[in-house]
Amino acid sequence: MAKAPQNAISPTRAEDYPEWYQQVVRAGDLAEPSAVRGCMVIKPWGYALWENMQRVLDGMFKDTGHVNAYFPLFIPLSYLEKEAQHVEGFAKECAVVTHHRLEAGPDGKLVPTGKLEEPLVVRPTSETIIGATYAKWVKSYRDLPILINQWANVVRWELRTRMFLRTTEFLWQEGHTAHATRAEAEEETYKMLDVYATFAQDYMAMPVIRGEKTAGERFPGAVNTYSIEAMMQDRKALQAGTSHFLGQNFSKAQEIKYLSAEGREEFAWTTSWGVSTRLIGALIMTHSDDDGLVLPPRLAPEHIIILPIHRNDEEAGPVLEYCRKLERELKAQQYDGHPVRARLDERDVPRADKKWQHVKRGVPILVEVGPRDIAGDTLMPKRRDQAAGEKKPAIARGEFVATVAAELAAMQKNLYERALALRSENTRVIEKLEDFEAFFTPKDPDKPEMHGGFAICHFVEGPETTEILNKHKVTIRCVPIAAEQGFTEQVAGKCLFTGQPTSTSGVFAKAY
Amino acid sequence: MAKAPQNAISPTRAEDYPEWYQQVVRAGDLAEPSAVRGCMVIKPWGYALWENMQRVLDGMFKDTGHVNAYFPLFIPLSYLEKEAQHVEGFAKECAVVTHHRLEAGPDGKLVPTGKLEEPLVVRPTSETIIGATYAKWVKSYRDLPILINQWANVVRWELRTRMFLRTTEFLWQEGHTAHATRAEAEEETYKMLDVYATFAQDYMAMPVIRGEKTAGERFPGAVNTYSIEAMMQDRKALQAGTSHFLGQNFSKAQEIKYLSAEGREEFAWTTSWGVSTRLIGALIMTHSDDDGLVLPPRLAPEHIIILPIHRNDEEAGPVLEYCRKLERELKAQQYDGHPVRARLDERDVPRADKKWQHVKRGVPILVEVGPRDIAGDTLMPKRRDQAAGEKKPAIARGEFVATVAAELAAMQKNLYERALALRSENTRVIEKLEDFEAFFTPKDPDKPEMHGGFAICHFVEGPETTEILNKHKVTIRCVPIAAEQGFTEQVAGKCLFTGQPTSTSGVFAKAY
Repeated sequence: MAKAPQNAISPTRAEDYPEWYQQVVRAGDLAEPSAVRGCMVIKPWGYALWENMQRVLDGMFKDTGHVNAYFPLFIPLSYLEKEAQHVEGFAKECAVVTHHRLEAGPDGKLVPTGKLEEPLVVRPTSETIIGATYAKWVKSYRDLPILINQWANVVRWELRTRMFLRTTEFLWQEGHTAHATRAEAEEETYKMLDVYATFAQDYMAMPVIRGEKTAGERFPGAVNTYSIEAMMQDRKALQAGTSHFLGQNFSKAQEIKYLSAEGREEFAWTTSWGVSTRLIGALIMTHSDDDGLVLPPRLAPEHIIILPIHRNDEEAGPVLEYCRKLERELKAQQYDGHPVRARLDERDVPRADKKWQHVKRGVPILVEVGPRDIAGDTLMPKRRDQAAGEKKPAIARGEFVATVAAELAAMQKNLYERALALRSENTRVIEKLEDFEAFFTPKDPDKPEMHGGFAICHFVEGPETTEILNKHKVTIRCVPIAAEQGFTEQVAGKCLFTGQPTSTSGVFAKAY
Repeated sequence: MAKAPQNAISPTRAEDYPEWYQQVVRAGDLAEPSAVRGCMVIKPWGYALWENMQRVLDGMFKDTGHVNAYFPLFIPLSYLEKEAQHVEGFAKECAVVTHHRLEAGPDGKLVPTGKLEEPLVVRPTSETIIGATYAKWVKSYRDLPILINQWANVVRWELRTRMFLRTTEFLWQEGHTAHATRAEAEEETYKMLDVYATFAQDYMAMPVIRGEKTAGERFPGAVNTYSIEAMMQDRKALQAGTSHFLGQNFSKAQEIKYLSAEGREEFAWTTSWGVSTRLIGALIMTHSDDDGLVLPPRLAPEHIIILPIHRNDEEAGPVLEYCRKLERELKAQQYDGHPVRARLDERDVPRADKKWQHVKRGVPILVEVGPRDIAGDTLMPKRRDQAAGEKKPAIARGEFVATVAAELAAMQKNLYERALALRSENTRVIEKLEDFEAFFTPKDPDKPEMHGGFAICHFVEGPETTEILNKHKVTIRCVPIAAEQGFTEQVAGKCLFTGQPTSTSGVFAKAY
């Protein structure tokens, strides 16, 4: 009887997808829970991935004219109250600082003392504190636009947390811009949505749909919210980045006023946009497999790990010498504008453990080097996106080195194409309610997460529509923008839920 | 009657040094106070300076084998209580989160609800939360060393704040390492002290003394604290970075235990080290003058600003064309391993305003370009560290471009030498109490900050010594390490304050 192949991650995706996700995060050395409820420790490998994401995004922000700055962690309670919808959306669950001292109580235990006159909220997002600053900076149209981004930590007191996807504290960037005209602010909103889409597709190898959120899903206080939406391997949607056109809502609440060239007093038009460490969750669920993480080469902290094989000290000398030379040769190659990130792992750890550690961490290429490889001067590199059983002929060392950048590029491309194929296979235009209900009803009641995917349907927002969606735990992800070919139905039709005539169609899915 | 020269900053250093500092921060667009007590807004120019510091330091940390990670912002109260001295030092003034929700009260105003079972402290430093994590990671000697750094924000509820020098929230890096042996942890402590000294001297152009803190000035919970100390222009000392040898104090409090190669259970030896946005305060007070900021070229966000001069549209065309070409030529030059950061400032703002803005921001080189300069193809670049009245002959454009990197390097060197000269002139070996008292007694009672400098004296710690120091508001900055020639008196002597024999001598100063 054939034994089932052993995988590094248990359970597998098919067995228990949510638990598989947690195990991949742990086995991949990305993060772990901390003693503080809902807060995680981002481990060095996970943080190196975030640093790579930051480096690329920061470059894209600067190339589009933005600069970085830093605003306070704390927001006075009264600031939050200024924008009615905003406070409704954000004041509910947040960390509140009420005291500024600790003193030993009667039992010797520390107790908070020094009560603050006005409580401070640990920022859940910074529109209010940044807007108050812009109000001081902006006097004339010459002071506009302001194009600022901030890299920061934020806190939202989430009830149910999941590492990277939803944590009490998370890391993010938040862009906040102010403009003299509506048109310019809208253009900024679209521009940053495109920056996010480009980053997701070209760096994360993750196809996304750019679209507008419906009224019910808007950022609290925004006129319009745009997002990029990606399909995970369980066919659920994940919102990976948002760009908000705030109109004059915040500038009116905070008095960001300027004197126009014509001498009139006007309110500025503002935007905000952000992505967070949630992107790491998206990356994991887009590419990883039952052996753990699979990382797109453009973002992987390491590209190639060289694993020496030697049974005794006599063999070790020449093997290590050969490996060091190989490491130098690989590092001298350029990929994606940087030297190839190759490393020889010489640690005194059993070889199989070492190998599986790198597999689980998603290193794009592993190459084992033993006396037989050296004798032939040929190698058997293993690409992380290719099946474990897939045998490829040995390759001459020189050729491997010369083609390594092309190989990394091929892997980057393959990951994107694989993810795109999954999305294409699981996206359907649906015109009848019974088809919609069938699409979102799990085939296997034990695996509620395995079903449907993305449905493209004509719709009109309203209570009837909401009721049906709630029943199936389905949400409107977005109304794709015109450029999203294949997702935008410009033709007239009728609402799947109410029968009302409409030419608006949206993407529907179960979502994170 | 000769009119006094006009300066961009009022008051000048001689008139009112502390107020001059605040004005330089504001006029230089570095930061401004926020609505939140003691928290500042770091403006784009100030943050760009911090980014440059981060980039260099981060590279130095990685070159010495460290990786980055991220730990929670919040620390459970019980964690702080584990190390007795540590809690004594840090629990006093800190931000305490006691609630996780806001709800509208009877008057409609938001009030904190959802009281936490255990209050959370916003990290003032992270030894306890990071140590608790290391305790989970370390099992065997093979898991050591752990060499991790974190870039983060921290909060200390300071009573009196001053931008960059002492703020409630500040940005910093904190390295936390764990080792199998005492010797290795001590070596790490010294190594990072040296990294800080190298950064201060080579990048900030700020001479520093490396030394050991006395018992009274140690980090709460440390066995030994080492610091780098710099002299500001008012001759006060500023502690610019610290490196702590924590011995086994924290590993015992948090049970960071490992099984040695010999199979014995041992406690790890730990260190921590940090520098913060306070470095920006140090940079300002080391180099700036009565016209505002002066930035060392290696850290300046911009190296050269080109200011076009044209009286009408007819002149504008050829002037701007010439300036754009000059900008391209300058950017094609390399300085310090990067392209020269040159920028043409074409803004429609009065020329004198633009020029003074860049002077106050400390841009190393300004060059104005008008029709007459173009006619001769010669320029009159102005270096920020050279006196305003200092006339230099015009230089051919080609020569200016070809020598610009050398000019920036010369400015970097000049700033260091100027600061070193100030320190040398104001450092004295003092052997008699009356000389010590005279040294630290201001000549002008209206300017308490203008006096003395660094005194090198033999001393023994104790109540008598402390009393005299308190009387004069003087502190022992450090006992310089052996390598600090000129500051280490290895000879036997006697304590200046008590007459006791000792061969220990320290650096004494008024301090920030």
